[in-house]
Amino acid sequence: MPEFRAGGPAQVEYLQELVDAGLLVRTGVHGVYARGGSFERVRLHFDALVTRTAAPESPEPLLFPPLLPREQLERSGYLGSFPHLAGTVFAFEGDEQAAAEQLELASQHEDWSGFQTMSDVVLMPAACYPLYPAIAARGPLPEGGVTLDTGDSYVFRREPSDDPARLQIFHMREIVRIGDRDTVVEWREEWRERAVTLLESLGLTIDLDIASDPFFGRAGRLLASAQRGQELKWELVSPIAENPTAIASSNYHQDHFGHTFTLRTSEDEPAHTGCMAFGEERVTLALFNTHGLDIQGWPAAVRRQMEL
Amino acid sequence: MPEFRAGGPAQVEYLQELVDAGLLVRTGVHGVYARGGSFERVRLHFDALVTRTAAPESPEPLLFPPLLPREQLERSGYLGSFPHLAGTVFAFEGDEQAAAEQLELASQHEDWSGFQTMSDVVLMPAACYPLYPAIAARGPLPEGGVTLDTGDSYVFRREPSDDPARLQIFHMREIVRIGDRDTVVEWREEWRERAVTLLESLGLTIDLDIASDPFFGRAGRLLASAQRGQELKWELVSPIAENPTAIASSNYHQDHFGHTFTLRTSEDEPAHTGCMAFGEERVTLALFNTHGLDIQGWPAAVRRQMEL
Repeated sequence: MPEFRAGGPAQVEYLQELVDAGLLVRTGVHGVYARGGSFERVRLHFDALVTRTAAPESPEPLLFPPLLPREQLERSGYLGSFPHLAGTVFAFEGDEQAAAEQLELASQHEDWSGFQTMSDVVLMPAACYPLYPAIAARGPLPEGGVTLDTGDSYVFRREPSDDPARLQIFHMREIVRIGDRDTVVEWREEWRERAVTLLESLGLTIDLDIASDPFFGRAGRLLASAQRGQELKWELVSPIAENPTAIASSNYHQDHFGHTFTLRTSEDEPAHTGCMAFGEERVTLALFNTHGLDIQGWPAAVRRQMEL
Repeated sequence: MPEFRAGGPAQVEYLQELVDAGLLVRTGVHGVYARGGSFERVRLHFDALVTRTAAPESPEPLLFPPLLPREQLERSGYLGSFPHLAGTVFAFEGDEQAAAEQLELASQHEDWSGFQTMSDVVLMPAACYPLYPAIAARGPLPEGGVTLDTGDSYVFRREPSDDPARLQIFHMREIVRIGDRDTVVEWREEWRERAVTLLESLGLTIDLDIASDPFFGRAGRLLASAQRGQELKWELVSPIAENPTAIASSNYHQDHFGHTFTLRTSEDEPAHTGCMAFGEERVTLALFNTHGLDIQGWPAAVRRQMEL
């Protein structure tokens, strides 16, 4: 069984409030909800605000669907760090007899997994992952590197929970910088300020934390410690249902993806990469949590800033 | 092996043209591509046009992520009709030792499927599927039924191909009507005209066909024949790379979902359901195919209509 992360009483109650208000709709699976019209409107208006904020650097949009070639997941190191969060796609490859047997089992809600075969795609683990091999395929970077925009990409994390801020599938919007070390480090510091300013302009309380990813197992604790020690991950934290929650984060991967995907700078060095990521459903939840469930009652300055 | 549907020479060549123009970007898997900025811009502007077209009937937006509870797929009948198109989500539930073994195999690109367990979610087979149980959970329909809007939902079809119009994952935008028989039948006829008018206003050549779904196996041929005989499916067909392609379709499910998900009218009868679906990537491809790969060169009337 995957680890079920029970939300505290405040989170469980807040989920119910969101459901009662029609902002989220339950599907029967923890961490998988439909978004009502008002929720989606806020999410899309926040997404548009990120577009306007990033516009001065003219990032190149590259919109990937939520499937990654399995071969890229195998290469990326993700299964070493986060095997518990990955999702793989299986499909049927049998004949009519097998289809009939599968159907019979499935109709009884019995185990039909034996009729499913691993495919060549997996669910997208992070919005920036598919960019690295795609950019590497173009050859060495142009001078000054590149800046990319994933748009509002769906990503998957296998961590069922009844905390509305912990979804199994959600939209991650990433601006990604690929270049030499100094370029990426400097860019990342600029975006740290820009992201805090952006989120504070929406009336959110933001704490900036040095953070680590939820690495798997005992070895993972060492990785997390090293990540913190080198300040490779910052999180922008804001309360959702009384719980301090990372609503955005910035990662510096050093030259990990440069080596993994043979991504070379114009000087033919392994490229460094960094990203600024916004968890759009979490930002939306933080806004509803801070300003109330009825958008009409939000502060005029926030509605103006979001063009709501 | 899933059936690989080879595109004809014209389709394969057109895919390469789209890639060369930066409209699509290859990922290494057939039928899974990233969308470049211009492609996405056209898709989103078409999506907004559907919103404006549907606005007079004020459909309720309900935005589902691309995961469906497995239990709903098992109930829906999909595995009887389309077992070859379904995708299921598997995940890791093992300990640290198992994670290390899985990683070792995956790093060598060997078979690590044995470490993956079927989860309680599957990939979304059609945008309207999750609506039926969600609406049924509210109790009997209000008088006059309901009209819903899925937004631009991702759906999955396991049919790898090198035809750019046959994607494994794409955006389906559906307007869905749930009510009594006459209401749904009449609504569907209105939308047939409205959809033809909408697509023709974009300069597309549209043929309206009585069609059938790609049912699996020998029994499927009977289902397809019955579907045609009762005109349960219409397709709006337009050429993409010389190939007549369904870019939109309308389905009438009679009371199938009403029975399956105990969806009742205000008169406590099983509800009838129908939907008008737009394949957004296909509409976008048809537009590029008809007007050229450079949006600046499109007819002024089309750009005005799409606010491009």
